[in-house]
Amino acid sequence: MDKIEFKPIGYIKSGYKTLDEIPRQSILAPASRAKIILDSRYQDGLLTLDESEYIIILFHFHKTNDCELRFIPRHSEKKKLRGVFATRSPRRPNPIGMSVVRLIGIRGNEIEFEGVDMLDGTPVLDIKPYSSGLNPPQ
Amino acid sequence: MDKIEFKPIGYIKSGYKTLDEIPRQSILAPASRAKIILDSRYQDGLLTLDESEYIIILFHFHKTNDCELRFIPRHSEKKKLRGVFATRSPRRPNPIGMSVVRLIGIRGNEIEFEGVDMLDGTPVLDIKPYSSGLNPPQ
Repeated sequence: MDKIEFKPIGYIKSGYKTLDEIPRQSILAPASRAKIILDSRYQDGLLTLDESEYIIILFHFHKTNDCELRFIPRHSEKKKLRGVFATRSPRRPNPIGMSVVRLIGIRGNEIEFEGVDMLDGTPVLDIKPYSSGLNPPQ
Repeated sequence: MDKIEFKPIGYIKSGYKTLDEIPRQSILAPASRAKIILDSRYQDGLLTLDESEYIIILFHFHKTNDCELRFIPRHSEKKKLRGVFATRSPRRPNPIGMSVVRLIGIRGNEIEFEGVDMLDGTPVLDIKPYSSGLNPPQ
């Protein structure tokens, strides 16, 4: 299979220095704030992002270097065996994480947000606007 | 900046052979069906994914090889200049696409879904379960 190469567009600056400190899902950690420090050469790409109340951050689980295809999720109540694609485990074939977080503000190349579940120093791959119009019907 | 290397976990099999045929957003194309043909070595990772009505597909915009940091989106009514991170344009620093699609069924290593907006042959990077519980409050 062909390899696909990406580069970080910036890094997360958060209070979580170890994996143990991280909440299970960003939505469960509304009080915590963190920042994306964007590589300043991409700063022009932030124009009008502040119109979004929520943003999607794609990032690299850079501390994960293995993959487990089937396992019982630690925090699940059902204790049911699941495939990795049915979970948000970092131990996946391509360790890409995705979080929906609340945008607090943008100042220069710094994007402050609420709802962090990423380690300090996490490489950021992409930022997308969150739009509820793109969700499936409830 | 450090390079990050991923490999496709599979490929999209869809009816869209050229960029012009693709609808603007997957949610606008509910009638179209397509498949992910997963590399069979990852097939174990699909266990229980069929419990999700919707799934998130992360993929590589493999036909895009440039990046535009600011532009006026083609289909926008406002004709307003936007930064790429405030849009879903494929022409981004890391050309990663994200679509929420409706799962139709899984047979072996083939995952059929509705709401395709990806070219035939698109490399798939990740599959995640969609959960409305992870969305921000409306």
